[in-house]
Amino acid sequence: MIGLFDSGLGGLTVSREVLRQLPGYDTVYFGDTARLPYGSKSPEVIKRFAVQGTDFLLSHGAKAIVIACNTMSALATDEVRARAKGVPVFEVVSPAVQRAAAVTGGRVGVIATRGTINSNVYVEQMAAHAPKVKVHGQACPMFVPLVEEGMARRPEAASIANEYLRPLRLRKIDTLVLGCTHYPMLKSVIAKAAPGVRLVDPAQETVASLKRYLKENPKFAAGLSKTDAHKFFVSDLNPHSQKLASNWLGRDVLLQKASVENARALSR
Amino acid sequence: MIGLFDSGLGGLTVSREVLRQLPGYDTVYFGDTARLPYGSKSPEVIKRFAVQGTDFLLSHGAKAIVIACNTMSALATDEVRARAKGVPVFEVVSPAVQRAAAVTGGRVGVIATRGTINSNVYVEQMAAHAPKVKVHGQACPMFVPLVEEGMARRPEAASIANEYLRPLRLRKIDTLVLGCTHYPMLKSVIAKAAPGVRLVDPAQETVASLKRYLKENPKFAAGLSKTDAHKFFVSDLNPHSQKLASNWLGRDVLLQKASVENARALSR
Repeated sequence: MIGLFDSGLGGLTVSREVLRQLPGYDTVYFGDTARLPYGSKSPEVIKRFAVQGTDFLLSHGAKAIVIACNTMSALATDEVRARAKGVPVFEVVSPAVQRAAAVTGGRVGVIATRGTINSNVYVEQMAAHAPKVKVHGQACPMFVPLVEEGMARRPEAASIANEYLRPLRLRKIDTLVLGCTHYPMLKSVIAKAAPGVRLVDPAQETVASLKRYLKENPKFAAGLSKTDAHKFFVSDLNPHSQKLASNWLGRDVLLQKASVENARALSR
Repeated sequence: MIGLFDSGLGGLTVSREVLRQLPGYDTVYFGDTARLPYGSKSPEVIKRFAVQGTDFLLSHGAKAIVIACNTMSALATDEVRARAKGVPVFEVVSPAVQRAAAVTGGRVGVIATRGTINSNVYVEQMAAHAPKVKVHGQACPMFVPLVEEGMARRPEAASIANEYLRPLRLRKIDTLVLGCTHYPMLKSVIAKAAPGVRLVDPAQETVASLKRYLKENPKFAAGLSKTDAHKFFVSDLNPHSQKLASNWLGRDVLLQKASVENARALSR
């Protein structure tokens, strides 16, 4: 069982990649919809929520964990690794940094939530990985509500994207990381607001790195269940999220309600 | 001590009214910023959070409670009253319904979060109070993020407001209730999108009803502390919210961080 978790349903863009790149593997997803969004919350709160999400996935039999959320990847990867005790943990930031470093001419932009940008994680990881590459970050806090309200194709989304990306255009970026799992849903609008810029989607890179790991660890891979079974849990459920989930995953999804608060008692 | 609580900082528009209409009375405010927004969450979750907020205010000495949030007023007033055991509870819906009924020519619009609109509370209360008045509801889920991101004066806000209010214009409403504590911050944009329509602000009406209650119950009023002391607690704190809070209250605010989860042990 591959476990994925996010603050909400945005992480389903990572689940979609698992279905595409690793067909057949069972997955369990947890979206903390009762407490979303995480993007504007403090590191302390995000770490606590991330540990609860980890407990939840372990209690449901996850043997590999994907942090399908840039904010948690940026702020809580160490806490999730400590909590997961030996279960391999994949996050969405480093695969995106590596990909961006590989394709850029030297100027990378990162768009993300306020939490991810303020964490400075992309700047620091790039400095460690490819010190000559310049990284410019830009928080885009309106993108998540625009996507969640189904307004990605409306002119207001284009106008807001144009405004958010202006400072990055002035910096003459050649590569742009979509540093929030919701943002691939705005890909066409973002591409228009950043003409000639190469887009990096962390979901694709993360699942590619998980795939490599499975190839390099065939024993571990053989231990993962492969019955094409997929469970989707959320901490709050309403008809709107049910519809969004199916749209974003590209197939029918039955969301089930679950409480994170009791997960610790169940885990291990 | 007058206690007010909300999912976040929007309820500060109600605190602002208390400062204006009831100067000198001590207040304590709780904003559940770690778990906001409530507007798109389920009734069950909102009731649980509302009870925790009530416990928090009681534990800080509140002798009167104002539910400074339309979603909680719509969905959890009974739970808050039961929990508050004798402490008078004021909510923002009925004063707004009464005011709208008093001024309308017969067609009232209500704009609010998805949670408030789906609860049907405005339609039901108006049917009980003034059965001849027609009520048309419209969810405006983008308004809260627009306000929180400081985009209330941008053209995208006007364009989105225009779109949201179109169905209400077609219904020829003459009166419009701003059914979310954030919306007064969009008053000018909303007024432009609903020309000739009278706006009702529940914050003003609610505090007016609290003021009447104090006048009618002088003994109770005399028992409330009046040292012009004001405390503001939030369940999560970041520099952005500190700035927003001062802007919205119209005076400098020092937000303090507090946990709701331990409040029950402290209360009574």
